Amino acid sequence: MSSTSSRRLNYDNINPHVKAAQYAVRGELAVKSEEYRAKLARGDTDLPFKEVISANIGNPQQLDQKPITFFRQVLSILENPKLLDHEDVLVKHMEYKPDVIERAKWLLKAVGSVGAYSASNGAPAIRQRIAEFLERRDGFPANEADIYLSGGASSGVNTLLHIICAGPETGILIPIPQYPLYTASLSILNATPVPYYLEEHHHWGTDLTSIKKACEDAKAKGTDVRAIVIINPGNPTGASLSEEDVRSVIEFAREERLVIMADEVYQTNVFVGRFHSFKAALRQMQKENPGKYDSVELASLHSISKGMVGECGHRGGYFELVGFDDKVQAEIYKFVSITLCAPVIGQCLVELMCNPPREGEPSFELYNEEYTGIYEGLQKRATALHEAFAQMEGVECDRPQGSMYLFPTITVPPRAVEEARKEGRRPDEFYSMRLLEATGVCVVPGSGFGQKDGTQHFRTTFLAPGTEWVGSMVKFHKEFMDQYR
Amino acid sequence: MSSTSSRRLNYDNINPHVKAAQYAVRGELAVKSEEYRAKLARGDTDLPFKEVISANIGNPQQLDQKPITFFRQVLSILENPKLLDHEDVLVKHMEYKPDVIERAKWLLKAVGSVGAYSASNGAPAIRQRIAEFLERRDGFPANEADIYLSGGASSGVNTLLHIICAGPETGILIPIPQYPLYTASLSILNATPVPYYLEEHHHWGTDLTSIKKACEDAKAKGTDVRAIVIINPGNPTGASLSEEDVRSVIEFAREERLVIMADEVYQTNVFVGRFHSFKAALRQMQKENPGKYDSVELASLHSISKGMVGECGHRGGYFELVGFDDKVQAEIYKFVSITLCAPVIGQCLVELMCNPPREGEPSFELYNEEYTGIYEGLQKRATALHEAFAQMEGVECDRPQGSMYLFPTITVPPRAVEEARKEGRRPDEFYSMRLLEATGVCVVPGSGFGQKDGTQHFRTTFLAPGTEWVGSMVKFHKEFMDQYR
Repeated sequence: MSSTSSRRLNYDNINPHVKAAQYAVRGELAVKSEEYRAKLARGDTDLPFKEVISANIGNPQQLDQKPITFFRQVLSILENPKLLDHEDVLVKHMEYKPDVIERAKWLLKAVGSVGAYSASNGAPAIRQRIAEFLERRDGFPANEADIYLSGGASSGVNTLLHIICAGPETGILIPIPQYPLYTASLSILNATPVPYYLEEHHHWGTDLTSIKKACEDAKAKGTDVRAIVIINPGNPTGASLSEEDVRSVIEFAREERLVIMADEVYQTNVFVGRFHSFKAALRQMQKENPGKYDSVELASLHSISKGMVGECGHRGGYFELVGFDDKVQAEIYKFVSITLCAPVIGQCLVELMCNPPREGEPSFELYNEEYTGIYEGLQKRATALHEAFAQMEGVECDRPQGSMYLFPTITVPPRAVEEARKEGRRPDEFYSMRLLEATGVCVVPGSGFGQKDGTQHFRTTFLAPGTEWVGSMVKFHKEFMDQYR
Repeated sequence: MSSTSSRRLNYDNINPHVKAAQYAVRGELAVKSEEYRAKLARGDTDLPFKEVISANIGNPQQLDQKPITFFRQVLSILENPKLLDHEDVLVKHMEYKPDVIERAKWLLKAVGSVGAYSASNGAPAIRQRIAEFLERRDGFPANEADIYLSGGASSGVNTLLHIICAGPETGILIPIPQYPLYTASLSILNATPVPYYLEEHHHWGTDLTSIKKACEDAKAKGTDVRAIVIINPGNPTGASLSEEDVRSVIEFAREERLVIMADEVYQTNVFVGRFHSFKAALRQMQKENPGKYDSVELASLHSISKGMVGECGHRGGYFELVGFDDKVQAEIYKFVSITLCAPVIGQCLVELMCNPPREGEPSFELYNEEYTGIYEGLQKRATALHEAFAQMEGVECDRPQGSMYLFPTITVPPRAVEEARKEGRRPDEFYSMRLLEATGVCVVPGSGFGQKDGTQHFRTTFLAPGTEWVGSMVKFHKEFMDQYR
């Protein structure tokens, strides 16, 4: 790297839409936290903490979460099918159960080799298994031809937005706060995000009045509003929508002729109430009112990265389309063909997530124990963190509802706001940077997700094990407030 | 799927740049071949062939190529690290050598869990290993900070073009024939491909006169030509550039201030002469003429999908940047952050490809036997296919030089051209469709890669085992010529 001025590419002439994209989850704070981690690894003892806690990103296996044994045993055979020459050794000495071997054989038949490209939209047999899972989950039929495997949900979002966005006039309703993938992707596509605010004082629920207003204002400015993004359960908020909320969004989408993009990657991370899928609600409404909802277009996304699976590094996911035009689907197929196919081992993990061992099967007991253990561990940590926030001056945080995050409001004292201004930082960035420097805990400032003007937040995962880091946050907060109050 | 007209998205209003993209490798013929395959699997006996041969895509493990044992043994442990609790069983009963176990431990330390996100640009320890490989290959230093892991080379091309292309006026020099990823990506980005023709009668080499002319013509039309793509060894042509050719492209890029995108994914698939990397040539020229070539910007891409590795389904690859501006690299880092990271198991395979077992190490003998076997098998099949083409009337094909493809010229008789016109197909599409219908062999028409006006070609891989399919092509060709001559 160097900066000779005669270079062809420089900051002033590269793609302006890429430059405009913002992505705080892996921004300045994340980079600094990695520097600290490297320092600690070199044995440096100057820092006031002994460990960096990456609470900035939902990356379960980087922290304490162990992969689910059944999944990984199957994958080990897919990677080295020669292990099947020694089935007896696997069973007798390696703790592989017969259903592990059976599933591995089935998947090998389905994909051939995990080293071969699959069909562009994913291996047909795996798409069929996902369809069966959706039928069980929703109680309505699903069609494998409407399912597209993707490299994590991010890649699915990228595909869908590429198809929907036809130019700068295309508008997409985006919740605020949001996962910044959405605004970043729209920036790169040079399309228009149309923000709508979630209601912090109603457990971060959707407020239809606010959505309608955002939509009307955008239309008045000439924006062609085409789609609405709903993240349910919410990221960064953790909010889980009621069935009534889901139905009212569908009703609104029908009236306004909006494609619904339902980001449902946290569907199993629900602590309060239960998950209501958009697909089930839409099919139910279609059943109740024949004809009325036939034109509603829904794309729902899921992933192996979150939930109790937590396999981010494997980059697996899928989306299901409902009500899309055939010719539009043909263009989606072509688009995904250009990047060939989603990682095949990730596709196999999607199949395993959708069809885990069932009661009575040899691997069920251990699977269930691991799955429940992860779920309960997350809930316990979320509660502990929530209790810590309750003790902290000027911090307000809704009860943990789901996903992997808490998104507390903080009150940054005026003197700290002034200090932040001098550093050219927003108040929440200033707070988060001081927190990192003092404790090694890396969070993401609320401004990275969007927040109402004048409010300050940060997002933290509750994935990290132990209580020490929570204690260090409480201590830092007190000192910060003492310094700037 | 359905086509109710009240849908929000229809063929007429979706992203026009996606619609304009063409990608023949997985187009109509590929879809039809999958239908045939499904028919045969259902036991249908109507078809005049018993097997579909997917010669349309370089997908080695879908055909005969076996994965390399050392690689897959290591991956099996990465997927299920609990196998390490039984090292002795692995060694005694499963044919795992000690260096397999050692490497798996090293990689687990490098990435933590393959289920965790890595750094956006790839795990630092893996980038360091790639840098060491490049130093050994080229004899010049490489820096891990300039290396970016990607989900196959396609994803790297997508990243680079996103940064380079600033609007419709940006032009990129693209070889014709080309791998259609390039024109498809430029179409989606709404930038301008500037085609230059390769010289069929000089073993598909680059012809600087032709490149200069294409560049000047584009500039005269107001196109801001910023980069030149070189595929070496060539796809679809198999051509392998001489050192002199590589140097002359670098010289031209310096004069014209063009970024060089060197697609070097077939660097080990070379049968004639040897591979000359752009990086080595550039560093050599910089050494010979201090200062003169300092401003040249080079991005070179590599992949685990091709070569003797052939692990397409794992979606792994990397690109190395030379001479790029720091601020531009920061934007590349941000861009790759938005999709989080390349599949981590694919990153590990990149490491294994770059650092295979060495002479004297326990796994070397088997590795070397497998590697050499694949190489020799490819060469043998390429030669057999080439000999078959030599017997076919009106077919001319350059000697096999490298990559995984042959790209013969065909002479389509006027009566067949007339028939093709009636079907709304190009002559080469007509020929390829008849070939598929008669033999089950799926190739890609030359028009899918671009070809000089009035010439007709097709691209076929030489991956498929056996000689029966080659015989069926010879027979089909004779009948086709008899029918239309």
